[in-house]
Order: sequence, then C-alpha cells, then structure tokens
Amino acid sequence: MAGTNSELQLLAEGPAIILVEPQLGENIGMVARAMANFGLAELRLVNPRDGWPSEKARSAASKADHVIDHTRVFDTIEEATADLQFTYATTARERYGFKPVRAPVVAAETLRTKFKSGEKTGILFGRERWGLTNEEVALADEIVTFPVNPAFASLNIAQAVLLMSYEWMKSSMDDVSETSFEPLEQQQATKEQLYGLFDQMEEALNARGYFRPEGKRQRMIENLRAVLSRRALTSQEISVLRGVFGTFDKYGRQTPRGSNGPYAEGSKKEDDRNDT
Amino acid sequence: MAGTNSELQLLAEGPAIILVEPQLGENIGMVARAMANFGLAELRLVNPRDGWPSEKARSAASKADHVIDHTRVFDTIEEATADLQFTYATTARERYGFKPVRAPVVAAETLRTKFKSGEKTGILFGRERWGLTNEEVALADEIVTFPVNPAFASLNIAQAVLLMSYEWMKSSMDDVSETSFEPLEQQQATKEQLYGLFDQMEEALNARGYFRPEGKRQRMIENLRAVLSRRALTSQEISVLRGVFGTFDKYGRQTPRGSNGPYAEGSKKEDDRNDT
Repeated sequence: MAGTNSELQLLAEGPAIILVEPQLGENIGMVARAMANFGLAELRLVNPRDGWPSEKARSAASKADHVIDHTRVFDTIEEATADLQFTYATTARERYGFKPVRAPVVAAETLRTKFKSGEKTGILFGRERWGLTNEEVALADEIVTFPVNPAFASLNIAQAVLLMSYEWMKSSMDDVSETSFEPLEQQQATKEQLYGLFDQMEEALNARGYFRPEGKRQRMIENLRAVLSRRALTSQEISVLRGVFGTFDKYGRQTPRGSNGPYAEGSKKEDDRNDT
Repeated sequence: MAGTNSELQLLAEGPAIILVEPQLGENIGMVARAMANFGLAELRLVNPRDGWPSEKARSAASKADHVIDHTRVFDTIEEATADLQFTYATTARERYGFKPVRAPVVAAETLRTKFKSGEKTGILFGRERWGLTNEEVALADEIVTFPVNPAFASLNIAQAVLLMSYEWMKSSMDDVSETSFEPLEQQQATKEQLYGLFDQMEEALNARGYFRPEGKRQRMIENLRAVLSRRALTSQEISVLRGVFGTFDKYGRQTPRGSNGPYAEGSKKEDDRNDT
C-alpha cells in the first residue's frame, strides 16, 4: 500500500526536517519516505554531497514525491533555519553545554505545542558518519537524543528521522493507544448464554455416563464450568461451541450428519433396527 | 559510534523478531541493526528468499554481528514460533476477525510485562511487498499496527522493526522523558545576583545619561528589569552579562582593555593629560 492515496487526507505539516551535509541519495529518499509515513512534508538539505535533485533519492522515497518535489537546498544551517523560530538538534553523543536535552516523546510534544500556536520549527540531523559539530548543535534551541542500547548506538539518519516523525504523529493523538482500525465488535456473552452452554454440555456428557463416580459429579461439573468461564466468551464463541457439542452429541463417525445413521438428523430410535 | 562497545552493557533480551519470507538481505541487515540499537537480539527468519547466511545482510547490519550470528532459519511460522507463548502480528491493513488490535506503545508494554514474568514472546513481520496473509495473522495472539499517515502508509520491514524495537526499549524506562545524558547542571541565579546585575547596569547607564527625561526614569528601569528577568537567568549567565556590561562601561573603542587609554585598567584620570 505504498504511495499517496488521493481519497485519504494527506498529512503534510509540522516541523521542517533539516539534513546537514547528507551524503547518500538513498538516505535522503528513506528520510522522505519516513517523513511521509508520519505526516511530515518539509525537507531541507544543507550542502548535500551529491547535489540535488537526486534520482537515487526519488526512488528510495517510494513515491513520497510530495516531499521530494518540495525539498529545498541551502548552503548553510543559518540559511536553512532562518525562518524558523525553534529548532532541535539531534545527537547521540553527550555535548558540552547548558542546552536542555530531551527525549523524543518530550521533543515531539514541544514541537506539537509550538505548531498549534503557529510557530515554525525544525529538527537538525547530522552527517551519516559523524553527526553535527558542536558549533552546529549550538545553533539549536534544545537537543533531542534517542534511548539507544548503550553498547550499540548506531542509528542512521533515516532511522533517526523515522523515530522523530513517528513521535510527531503520536503527539497528535489524544490517546497513544489509538489504532487506525478496530477489531470487529466483540460482545461478551450474557450469563444466560453461558449457562445454556453448561446445560447442553453437561446433559450430553451425563447421557454418556461421563460423571462417574457419582461422588465426583459435583467437582467434575465445577471443573468443566471453570474451563469454560476462565476466558470471557463472546456470544459468537458460545454458538460455535454449542455447534461443536451438538455435533458430537447427534452424529457418530459411522453415522455423520446427512447419513441415515441411527442418530442421523430426523431419524428415530425405532429406525435403528432397519440399519445394518 | 557504530558497532558494539565492550565497555558498556550490551542489551540482548526480549521478544524474538520473526521475518516471514523476507526478500532482500539488505532489509534483514537493517532489521538486525534496528534491533541491536534498542536491545533486541533474537532474529528468526521464515524462508528467506535468498537463503541464509547473507553477506548483504551482514554488511547492512553495520556490526550488529551478535544478532546476525545467532539468526535462525525456519521453514514455517509454526516452527519459528513453536517455543513462544505469545505473539503479535504486525499489519498495516485492517483484517477480518476478532483479534485485539494494539498500538505499538501498548504492544511494547504487554511484551515487557510478559518478559518480566518469564514468558517467551515474538513479533511477526510480513513480506516486503504484501505483508502477512490472513492465515498467518490468525496464528498470532494479537495485532499491532502503526499510526501512519492515512494517505501515505509505506513502512518497510526494517522501519516497522525499528519502531517496535524502539517502543520495546522505551517500555523499560520508568519515565519516557529519561535521556541517556543530561545538560551541565544549571542553577538558577539567586535574586541577590539578579539585583546585583540590575544595579551595575542601571548605575552605568545613569552615568551616561540614559534615563531621560527624568519623568520616564521609573518606567525605563521597569522595562529594563523586565527584559532581564523574563527568562530565569542562571548564575553563569549573570556573570557573563556582568562581564559584558563591565566591558562596555570600562573600555572604549579607542581605549580597549590593555591599552593605556583614559579609562584603561589601573590608569588614573591624572594620567589623561599625558596622552594624545
């Protein structure tokens, strides 16, 4: 389901993503794809090594053309951020200085708040190999860093942009447990439906002499009922189970449903002797 | 800072990542890299198209060798999940059925809870082109889906694994606003320090006839103090500002610090006439 779907609202707003001296077109394209997935659209490049436009970037963007087509190129970070009011610098390394350091969740909430109040914001991402210089970080208002494995910290720029874009999208949700689709409506069965299942099963088992010795009957019934009530069954699940028990009850291996066997539907005990 | 750092704890625990019929070695490698970044280490492949091991996967994994080296290959999802007690299926499309659908945050919390209680869990990811079949989804306990842009939903498997791995790491944090490093300690200045700044600035400005007309003096002072108190200044910031005002006050363009100019440090008015 790649590519834009014109029937659905295309989210294209929020902070600018600013890549400082990105080297590989593929990475720029993956960045655009990551942005598009989570509703960001404004990509800015500072001195891309292989120039711009880039066919490699476009193909790696997997149809995120609305991002690629509007990507702008600048010579310096100062120019790339001139119209912005608040910027984050992403960094994996600890930096000297007094700048606040934020987790992605917190940074995304801050960006969302500023977006709602009409402020223009941006997020700076450094070079593939060595990130941002301290001087570049110093141009940002705050630092955002990712909670990576202490012994293996190796996010590439497309991965870092993906995580910030994802948190940006989440920051628009009233409830982070929201999902874009829901399971089919599940109605828990009424107790009457549950007791109906108990009765059917217990009657059929009783007719087969299941509850022996008699002294154990009550305990056996309790255990059976415990098994069937441990997980709250839905009405649908109960009707499925009743069908299963009913099938075991009415039909035999030798006399399946539809046969004229002894317990075949509609047949009567009197017919039995006519069979062989 | 790619690669494992033996001085730091290497996180390698948590749910198994199960890729169903992945096609490109590069994607498998990016999946391993994403996992390693967020402390996951158990990768399982069901029928990788180009076989296993894969040099392309190893190079794309960017030194996540501890994941690549222990990757296991299976013929079927049933075999790949046989030892697990709970699995999620990732899907972007709505599916028919009654399975609970969870957001990544909720799924990660569930996986963390089960991990703490010693249960073995896994997350299923589908093929690059068309994901998981309904039959494959039916083998999982619950569904997890990502809050993507309705009009542009195009996450590749490495991106999907990255997001789940990231949420897994976050689920280990007491507070999602935690960061791996902190800014240098910032002490807000005492009011005495702030008043000291006011006095220095106002005295120096007053000596220069800044507060005119006299009737406006009080208002001008209030405005100046408002500017300096709007953002809570730290002790360090106040000493920097005092140094700035002091420099303006003591030295002139023609008589910079270190010169023997009229107001030069240590010079006395009496010396002035000796200068020209």
